[in-house]
Amino acid sequence: MSKPPARTRLAEAAFALFDERGYEQTTVDDIAERAGLGRTTFFRHYRSKEAVIFPDHDRLLELIRDRLATSSHGTALVAVSDAVRLVLLHYVDEGDLARRRYVLTSKVPALRDREIASVARYQRLFREFIADWMGDPTEAASLRAELMAASVVAAHNHVLRRWLREESPDPVTEVDDAMRDVLALFPARGSRPEREGGTTVVAFRTGQNLDALLPQLRRLVED
Amino acid sequence: MSKPPARTRLAEAAFALFDERGYEQTTVDDIAERAGLGRTTFFRHYRSKEAVIFPDHDRLLELIRDRLATSSHGTALVAVSDAVRLVLLHYVDEGDLARRRYVLTSKVPALRDREIASVARYQRLFREFIADWMGDPTEAASLRAELMAASVVAAHNHVLRRWLREESPDPVTEVDDAMRDVLALFPARGSRPEREGGTTVVAFRTGQNLDALLPQLRRLVED
Repeated sequence: MSKPPARTRLAEAAFALFDERGYEQTTVDDIAERAGLGRTTFFRHYRSKEAVIFPDHDRLLELIRDRLATSSHGTALVAVSDAVRLVLLHYVDEGDLARRRYVLTSKVPALRDREIASVARYQRLFREFIADWMGDPTEAASLRAELMAASVVAAHNHVLRRWLREESPDPVTEVDDAMRDVLALFPARGSRPEREGGTTVVAFRTGQNLDALLPQLRRLVED
Repeated sequence: MSKPPARTRLAEAAFALFDERGYEQTTVDDIAERAGLGRTTFFRHYRSKEAVIFPDHDRLLELIRDRLATSSHGTALVAVSDAVRLVLLHYVDEGDLARRRYVLTSKVPALRDREIASVARYQRLFREFIADWMGDPTEAASLRAELMAASVVAAHNHVLRRWLREESPDPVTEVDDAMRDVLALFPARGSRPEREGGTTVVAFRTGQNLDALLPQLRRLVED
């Protein structure tokens, strides 16, 4: 059997050492030595010790940007909730490595902050994409874009975190469900029928009897 | 006129130097010297160079925790959307200092990451508070808590960012409006009547005629 590529060997060595000695106590030289490689090889593959842990954030951000740029979805929110799946799929594809990174990240504040900052970059990209798409310069539209982006990212992270903690056997189905919940929070405004001839039903829960309620509902709708 | 207290003088000196030389190029000794104080005095007031910039995050988090713990609001979401105002009011109260910090934070990646990480801590506190309040261990409830916390924080940051950029003349009214938008995304479920004798109306928009629709609605409700 052939050896895994240098990049993978360095990552494996780094994670093993971070587990054994702690992140702060491990140097780049330690990692290179454990992988049976030189310091120069290390820096050919990773910019820094931290970069071994999060090598793919920039690439993922680019992937998402491309996906959004070529999206054929009907609304910005659907486009974004589709694009964010790329992140989940990437982690699921990494498998055990992603879970070891999660354990490590939870223990080292500097790594956790770095991880959180990268999530903020996705959220910002989504917010700008949605705001551009809406093309509405009002403050209300800008707030709506902000809420949509935050909700997509929160729903995604919820499912990702469950998967990382081995609480979610089927994260792909789960992320679909979660995105449906997000879409339901923000009904598409473009798909409203014209007022004439349509029906508007107001949703509420009440202790009233249905028969007593209907005339009132009708009056409301016909106003 | 008496001199401002040492804490304020150190902060003023630090911001002046960060502006002049850049954050990375400024040392703690530089700051102490500019303020006409010693290194020991600096460390009596701030743990690190970074702490001069964000001295109040931990205290604010505690304030918010206290406010939530003693909240008498009807729902977790209202309690959280009230508590987050403390952050906005704190920044508005700081005035120009908050705006200078914002300019600096936007330019120095390490500071921006730190700021983002502290926002994530508020969001986590809110998520846990809402989840505890709901007392519902299902995955759906946990996702809902996540979405609520993300929305409150996004709406708050939206208004705060506008104020920091001098785009919002009245941030207090604006944050009230933004929180109303957030509350509208998540209609309160706590106000449900008991199932027996109650009515459930499903909300949707349709081109159908109301009279044709009512029997179907009724069937749905009576099921």
